[in-house]
Amino acid sequence: MTILLYDLVGSDTTRPFSPHCWKVAMALAHKGLDYRTMPTRFLEVPDIEGGASKTVPVIRDGDAVVPDSFTIALHLEHAYPDRPSLFGGAGGEAHARFIERWSQLTIHPYLGVAALTALHGMQDETNAAYFRQSREARYGRPLEEVTAARDAGLSAFRASLEPLRGMLAYQPWIGGTAPLFADYIVFGAFQWARIATPYTLLDDADPVAEWFGRCLNLHNGLGLSVAAAA
Amino acid sequence: MTILLYDLVGSDTTRPFSPHCWKVAMALAHKGLDYRTMPTRFLEVPDIEGGASKTVPVIRDGDAVVPDSFTIALHLEHAYPDRPSLFGGAGGEAHARFIERWSQLTIHPYLGVAALTALHGMQDETNAAYFRQSREARYGRPLEEVTAARDAGLSAFRASLEPLRGMLAYQPWIGGTAPLFADYIVFGAFQWARIATPYTLLDDADPVAEWFGRCLNLHNGLGLSVAAAA
Repeated sequence: MTILLYDLVGSDTTRPFSPHCWKVAMALAHKGLDYRTMPTRFLEVPDIEGGASKTVPVIRDGDAVVPDSFTIALHLEHAYPDRPSLFGGAGGEAHARFIERWSQLTIHPYLGVAALTALHGMQDETNAAYFRQSREARYGRPLEEVTAARDAGLSAFRASLEPLRGMLAYQPWIGGTAPLFADYIVFGAFQWARIATPYTLLDDADPVAEWFGRCLNLHNGLGLSVAAAA
Repeated sequence: MTILLYDLVGSDTTRPFSPHCWKVAMALAHKGLDYRTMPTRFLEVPDIEGGASKTVPVIRDGDAVVPDSFTIALHLEHAYPDRPSLFGGAGGEAHARFIERWSQLTIHPYLGVAALTALHGMQDETNAAYFRQSREARYGRPLEEVTAARDAGLSAFRASLEPLRGMLAYQPWIGGTAPLFADYIVFGAFQWARIATPYTLLDDADPVAEWFGRCLNLHNGLGLSVAAAA
């Protein structure tokens, strides 16, 4: 049965941008599962599946409604054990949680800053008003002031990627010789920024940029199906 | 056959302190393998097994001489597949490399600073001279000046542990419900500091401190077999 993925979009429904929804799209493709997306705007999220979650992604898989990207990946892993593994065993599942926390706490804060005004610009009028109000409450200042700090933070951000960069000297993927869900966790963050803003986050010669390029080409170029922000 | 672990010590041969040797000691205990240690001082390292490695740990396991803690863990995993796994599968092996890089690049630099003068104080005269010369060349200043910076760096160090701290809200070990080699990777770093210096690195209530306490109690209290620095 076709899995339904509630996928966050702005005014252009063909440009899903949520990092966490991208993690799930890549996981579904990795498993070779048939799925379709339901474009969902910020203000529509509370109504998904009768209020199943305050956030996206959410999937409907038959009778199961599953929120949260990591929970969804675990669901897919165990519901479809004969498909290619997303974790490479129990140790991979456990270690992926560390990598998820690292990505969320190290990469997301800076990318959220760097892309903030661009993400606002992608929303329709009603959702843009919601986005501005909720994000300005969170940051305590105007969106434009938040994003203006990105140049000052860029060099520290690049340095913070050193564990990933160092790992790439040993192996081409976080998953080792082939990608696993942990790769999609970090990919989702960079894909979010790629779709929102043309701001240059990485030097082309950075091994992290090369890894991200490899991720974009996975699964028949799924990540490339949405053009980079111009 | 008993495995031989070349284990870094200072003037007191009963206080092995190398973080990387501790990773291996924990891995050997995890596998339930019989081993003995060969106390080795810095200046004796180049002579181990006819010059097998510039660094410790090195193990001799039958005819195999294996250097480097991560390589040793992989060797033990594949040489003794019927013993408890150190990685929990191929995904765990791959993801553990990321965690190794994170630990080495995030935790080791600060702990190296915080414990530097204490580590110097643990060496005999000849090795202390070597240690001072090589480390002052690396840091470009006297050991005492390096360690004097530890108070200023403590709060940033604690913040840098947030991915581990966040993960501990989901599961008690990096390995999930039970420890794996990735736990020993990070344990080794904190054990190095614990044995070298009484400097307080973590609040007692920090989940990372609680996790470290659990690590110390593993394998019949192997980590506790060396008292904390007083």
